[in-house]
Amino acid sequence: MDLAADDSTAGTVAAGTVATGSVATDNLAPRIMAMSRTEAVMAEIRRRLAGRALTAGEKLPSIRRFAREMRVSPSTVVEAYDRLAAEGLIRSRAGSGFFVAGGVPPVALADAGPRLDRAIDPLWVSRQSLDAPPDMLRPGCGWLPADWMPGPAIRRAIRALARADDRVLTEYGGTRGSPALRQLLARQCATEGLDVGTDQILLTASGTQAIDLLCRFLLNPGDTVLVDDPCYFNFQTVLRASRAKIVSVPYTPAGPDMARFMEALATHRPRLYITNSALHNPTGATLSPQTAHRLLTAAAAHDLTIVEDEIFADFEPEPSPRLAGLEGLNRVIRIGSFSKTLSASIRCGYIVARADWIEGLLDLQVATGFGGPSPVAAELVLGTLGDGSYRKHLAALRGRLARRRREMLDALEGLGFTAWTLPRGGFYLWCHLPEGRDAAELARAALAERVVLAPGNAFSVMQSAGDLMRFNVAQMNPDVLRVLGRALR
Amino acid sequence: MDLAADDSTAGTVAAGTVATGSVATDNLAPRIMAMSRTEAVMAEIRRRLAGRALTAGEKLPSIRRFAREMRVSPSTVVEAYDRLAAEGLIRSRAGSGFFVAGGVPPVALADAGPRLDRAIDPLWVSRQSLDAPPDMLRPGCGWLPADWMPGPAIRRAIRALARADDRVLTEYGGTRGSPALRQLLARQCATEGLDVGTDQILLTASGTQAIDLLCRFLLNPGDTVLVDDPCYFNFQTVLRASRAKIVSVPYTPAGPDMARFMEALATHRPRLYITNSALHNPTGATLSPQTAHRLLTAAAAHDLTIVEDEIFADFEPEPSPRLAGLEGLNRVIRIGSFSKTLSASIRCGYIVARADWIEGLLDLQVATGFGGPSPVAAELVLGTLGDGSYRKHLAALRGRLARRRREMLDALEGLGFTAWTLPRGGFYLWCHLPEGRDAAELARAALAERVVLAPGNAFSVMQSAGDLMRFNVAQMNPDVLRVLGRALR
Repeated sequence: MDLAADDSTAGTVAAGTVATGSVATDNLAPRIMAMSRTEAVMAEIRRRLAGRALTAGEKLPSIRRFAREMRVSPSTVVEAYDRLAAEGLIRSRAGSGFFVAGGVPPVALADAGPRLDRAIDPLWVSRQSLDAPPDMLRPGCGWLPADWMPGPAIRRAIRALARADDRVLTEYGGTRGSPALRQLLARQCATEGLDVGTDQILLTASGTQAIDLLCRFLLNPGDTVLVDDPCYFNFQTVLRASRAKIVSVPYTPAGPDMARFMEALATHRPRLYITNSALHNPTGATLSPQTAHRLLTAAAAHDLTIVEDEIFADFEPEPSPRLAGLEGLNRVIRIGSFSKTLSASIRCGYIVARADWIEGLLDLQVATGFGGPSPVAAELVLGTLGDGSYRKHLAALRGRLARRRREMLDALEGLGFTAWTLPRGGFYLWCHLPEGRDAAELARAALAERVVLAPGNAFSVMQSAGDLMRFNVAQMNPDVLRVLGRALR
Repeated sequence: MDLAADDSTAGTVAAGTVATGSVATDNLAPRIMAMSRTEAVMAEIRRRLAGRALTAGEKLPSIRRFAREMRVSPSTVVEAYDRLAAEGLIRSRAGSGFFVAGGVPPVALADAGPRLDRAIDPLWVSRQSLDAPPDMLRPGCGWLPADWMPGPAIRRAIRALARADDRVLTEYGGTRGSPALRQLLARQCATEGLDVGTDQILLTASGTQAIDLLCRFLLNPGDTVLVDDPCYFNFQTVLRASRAKIVSVPYTPAGPDMARFMEALATHRPRLYITNSALHNPTGATLSPQTAHRLLTAAAAHDLTIVEDEIFADFEPEPSPRLAGLEGLNRVIRIGSFSKTLSASIRCGYIVARADWIEGLLDLQVATGFGGPSPVAAELVLGTLGDGSYRKHLAALRGRLARRRREMLDALEGLGFTAWTLPRGGFYLWCHLPEGRDAAELARAALAERVVLAPGNAFSVMQSAGDLMRFNVAQMNPDVLRVLGRALR
């Protein structure tokens, strides 16, 4: 354990920018320098295609102009364009320059930005975890093993569903989602001192979809959004899908580094900040009351909206201060889901926000999904949450995780890892690697032995977490530890 | 019945444009003229806010420039800006003009465009149908009553789910969705002569979400998309959410009016065309083989991608020609869902497309939803489709609907309606009102008697269907007919 290392790690990262639609600066520079100039020009064009800044049939920047912009010679741009044309991405028209090839849609999200090491490409980590065959070990994934979940309560809820009214089983249901489930969520909010009506709650198809809906509702393409560094890796991809500009602020064990946060507010005038207050992903840290207060004061002064992702909240031993609870949903939006403690197969998320915002979100959800979660999924969530055993399941889960965190921390320390902080709950341990070791390299070595890890830079916009790794303690076992040991030897 | 009227109706509408980000032309003009000049300027600013062409903190066009653009006097713009400021939507800064007020997100989708009559606002029709209390009658809705659906098979699938493996009940599942369900869909495609691998199929959270995903994947903001006039009303809202420019082409009983279609291709260079080939919504018409062939030839010549929404396909007595079947998924994408024939509560849609596009869509779906449908929903769909009774259910449904269409057509003709065409299947009848009557007015009158109708202009980008109404025959009954009769008297 080396808690002193926290601040110094956080301190080495400056608030930096990844722009989706323009030439990126600081953080990409080292990677661009490692490529040839031609490759850098090609990467930039690919990035514009991926970010939809250039689209099928559109003319590419002139060779002269782009050479100036990229600070390379015109012949470098000619070479880059020729190679992209050979790949079929662009084509030249005699006398009128280069154009984006048609028919084929812009390159996929995964190609946004210069090609990353796959081990630290956020989308690749998600897909790898989700699509790993059952025999692979997944200490890098973001969910509990099936036998940690409330199986018997879920089965009871399913059997009850088989007896439900035909309408429940076959109709779309209302646009806001199950009134009973929204009432239950409103009561949960009330226990945390957050008084909300059911008209302030919208059920969504998933927690991620809740964030996506909010981004589409609140952001214009090119708007700036603040995230933590490190943060949940999918925040980066969902924001990219909304063509947002992402600015990250170093995260400390008490919340975001407020000096850097204020700097970022002044410099970048962000529209939105997305964070986890309770059991932050990947660090497991919890926002301190002081930081929460400073955050809200700064948000009010800079007209900043905050999305508070509560997805790990039920793992806390007792509730920590929440931005929504302190501020009361004027500029804070709470989102969450049931994927971590109930089931990730019964998908259902929610948004708690101002009633007028919920109205607008509702329209957007009808337009883009003709409603939220499967009504049958909402029924199963309601049935399981309402099952007498669910509270006991949560209490047992917390205890089991506390023991597992301790055991795994000991084991990881034995291998030379040190915890960045000691989480109060949840299933993550965010750990420094032994001195001089690289997380992406370790992830690659482990993958060769059929173990999926989550290396630090998958969570870092600034790529500042190359010596950190997120472990899911519930998915660890002696085999994982042996693979780690071998790979580090 | 008045089939001769079809062409003349279709013929009165020119292919026209609704632009989300610029001053709209033809189709809005009459409505703008009915407003005062000040109101028209205010409406235009509201529209830009709704379409996110103007965003929080942004400067509004200067008074002089906007007066020129809107062809009004500067004092009219001053008055409009002052009134918008009084509403709190914008604010003036001394010496530097007017700015969009911050903090509050842009107005909702429903406000895009000058305030429409609510009865013909596409979003409002959706929300009204979905949120109508159980005692209201809904001949305007787009689904079958609960007792027309395969309840017993669904209940059997639910009981089987209660015995499924813990992993099925609690884990996220793979990113492409249930392999077994994708295999079943691939076999269905094969029976129509469309050979696809399971890597060409992606399960999504719903049919609408499939369209939304495709729009986000294929379109840049401002890209032009062709739709039919009339078309499913939610195509308009989902395209608006992607900030697309919508151009509509008159639809005939054999498919789109090809002369107008070719004109629109040449004039607007659209990126995408979205349509239903089988049992077109709302008309119930079916694409003719000749039109299908001409369409595909034109699409190839103009590098147009086509989304073929197959949501009503299972209602056809025998399969009609499909664009995907004819063309083979080079530039055609098939989408569908199980909401109409199986359950709208067990939500699951799918996309069938080129494997390389599926890869990109997969990334986008992980980024924006961390996967597709609830895996439990996919299991229930699979279980119900695989139930021995499902084919019989479909056959019985087709017979029952054929009888109901005939009965309701007789009843509606008795009230003075005439069918625009005679659908080969499905539950819609698209009918002309008795001479001189207005559909929006009739919808309003019916709503006062707790009957939700779907007036023609909700389906028409050009607002050319003011004398047409879509009836869902399965949701009709003597009470509905009585209300219609009273309202028309």
